[in-house]
Amino acid sequence: MIIEKIAESKFNDSVFDSKVFGKNFTDHMLVAKYKDGKWDEPKIMPYGALEFTPAAMAFHYGQAIFEGMKAYKNENDEVFIFRPDRNFERFNLSAERLNMPTVPEEIFMEGIQTIVDLDRQWVPKNYGTSLYIRPTMFATEEAISARSSNEFMFVVLLAYAPAYYDKPLSVKIADFYSRSAQGGVGFAKCAGNYAASFYPTQEAQKDGYDQVIWTDSIEHKYIEEAGTMNVMVRIGDKLLTAPTSERILNGVTRDSLLTLAKDSGMDVEIRPVAVQEMYDAYKDGQLKEVFGCGTAVVVNSYNAVGFAEERAPIEILSDEESFASILKGKLRDIQYGLVEDPYGWRVKVGK
Amino acid sequence: MIIEKIAESKFNDSVFDSKVFGKNFTDHMLVAKYKDGKWDEPKIMPYGALEFTPAAMAFHYGQAIFEGMKAYKNENDEVFIFRPDRNFERFNLSAERLNMPTVPEEIFMEGIQTIVDLDRQWVPKNYGTSLYIRPTMFATEEAISARSSNEFMFVVLLAYAPAYYDKPLSVKIADFYSRSAQGGVGFAKCAGNYAASFYPTQEAQKDGYDQVIWTDSIEHKYIEEAGTMNVMVRIGDKLLTAPTSERILNGVTRDSLLTLAKDSGMDVEIRPVAVQEMYDAYKDGQLKEVFGCGTAVVVNSYNAVGFAEERAPIEILSDEESFASILKGKLRDIQYGLVEDPYGWRVKVGK
Ligand SMILES: Cc1ncc(COP(=O)(O)O)c(C=O)c1O
Ligand SMILES: Cc1ncc(COP(=O)(O)O)c(C=O)c1O
Repeated sequence: MIIEKIAESKFNDSVFDSKVFGKNFTDHMLVAKYKDGKWDEPKIMPYGALEFTPAAMAFHYGQAIFEGMKAYKNENDEVFIFRPDRNFERFNLSAERLNMPTVPEEIFMEGIQTIVDLDRQWVPKNYGTSLYIRPTMFATEEAISARSSNEFMFVVLLAYAPAYYDKPLSVKIADFYSRSAQGGVGFAKCAGNYAASFYPTQEAQKDGYDQVIWTDSIEHKYIEEAGTMNVMVRIGDKLLTAPTSERILNGVTRDSLLTLAKDSGMDVEIRPVAVQEMYDAYKDGQLKEVFGCGTAVVVNSYNAVGFAEERAPIEILSDEESFASILKGKLRDIQYGLVEDPYGWRVKVGK
Repeated sequence: MIIEKIAESKFNDSVFDSKVFGKNFTDHMLVAKYKDGKWDEPKIMPYGALEFTPAAMAFHYGQAIFEGMKAYKNENDEVFIFRPDRNFERFNLSAERLNMPTVPEEIFMEGIQTIVDLDRQWVPKNYGTSLYIRPTMFATEEAISARSSNEFMFVVLLAYAPAYYDKPLSVKIADFYSRSAQGGVGFAKCAGNYAASFYPTQEAQKDGYDQVIWTDSIEHKYIEEAGTMNVMVRIGDKLLTAPTSERILNGVTRDSLLTLAKDSGMDVEIRPVAVQEMYDAYKDGQLKEVFGCGTAVVVNSYNAVGFAEERAPIEILSDEESFASILKGKLRDIQYGLVEDPYGWRVKVGK
């Protein structure tokens, strides 16, 4: 690995005062190029602009995937990354579906270890804050012909992630637009899935909702996931979530919460969740909680669900009663190193 | 419009000897930037690299759309673009679905007029060759947060398009993978649609086919379109093609061929075409032709169609008998200015 350090760090403590997510990049980025069937030596260099022609294939044919994970610092200034092995696996699964080369473990895992270690002063310590890690790969060949690119770039960016203000959101259940098709790319973390979701999300916002819960594209009868979150539904004291599939991203947070829920004796069912079942439960007063989960927010409760034209308010339960709050607390305590990590989810950075 | 001309043209006649599509760019490109809710003055400048950070949103969330059209030169060195108004309309339709700003006519149409005029020596004269025009727009804001970008770049690239060697292709009818969902972005010419198609196409190639004919994502019962072509099917003497929909790109070539077919008295039906109907016709010896149509190839006949595990060969008809050849000839004669253009499809460039 080639390391070209920044002449003078941009870091100062006011970095951690920012409230903006995804804009405050650290001193360095990691770049590795793929050409002629192989990866060159990865290079860590100062974060900044590179040269691309507007004919770079990613701009035209969208071969682009990414991942998102977080690093946390504990009281002893030790830095840990949460379950990076899962993101590494998913990244290469996305790569295969998008017909891109996979990234070897030495580049992905060691690259991330090295750059996070180098920029470790950018990892904040406050509960709720973290350093966001964004590995990404996109097509760079200079060609406007609709085929797979022969050249790619793998990049790791790091940005300060401020505490997410945990306001409950309202969500509309999709009854016209779709996020993914059977036999499509819904399970992949590819660029095109996000672009396709912005317009329907904006339409939902015009109707007074914050986000969309996607449903199956065939009949809009079963819920799938939300914008950048998997979705969990509590009916009575049962916690339900859709099985992952070719249409649903296999979320790391979802998996972690399911493990924590089962291990704390909650009644968990992984099976298709019908919109009608949710609606009936709402009418019966049994729709106790609906919440999204993902790396960015960890857990986000919904205080209203839009069933077609009907807006169903959901009372936010107290922290003691809410499955969302209980699970979020358990997960964050592990992430921040406040409790034992019986699952081996935390991976230490550096010596 | 700001025009910064290249110091010395790269053009020489050997440019037209190339057999490669999408790699031979002309001297100039057009660039316009969108920020703070408005477009700045477009600039024509020498084709080449610009600076982007790897955090440019297009690389992460895929807000990226494009168009493709062609310019032709006649014997009198006059240059014509084929139906650019249709591409302009479709570009802005794609922009809306991808939650991107629309591009005003002055920038899109006048920009293309001006740059093609400036690089007119790059427009070839040989029947079958042309200058390919690629307008594209993508998200440039430096932010890794899953939402619409606030900054975009509109670019027009020009590249020499050599004569397409008109070898018949074989196609597999999709029975597992899908290109687009109901309520999705199939009708938009957005980057993600192409990236999603490369892997299934590669799988079809492993089975000995060149391309995929996509089918509805629900049951794979009705054909939709091919990689970068709409599809027409001739059963007996009837020419069939699927209606355009939210899942199918509304091709300019498709529309032009349908007009030519109707006006030459062919029996044309625009309606869903079932895979089973094609298969039954094949068994009855009535599946006379299947062909793709699009700007790049104009018309491309298929000499084999894969129905699940069965490869159905299709005899290529003589130029006199083939609807594909007859229509292709009629369309190209108009494009190259060899016959009158009763439809007003050709738009002259420059004075
Ligand atoms: C579409 C989608 N679903 C679900 C998730 C949640 O996945 P994870 O918990 O791995 O962050 C994300 C975010 O990463 C996402 O983008
Ligand atoms: C997916 C798709 N379908 C169809 C077409 C044909 O459209 P057109 O005739 O406008 O080139 C294209 C190519 O532009 C395409 O990309």
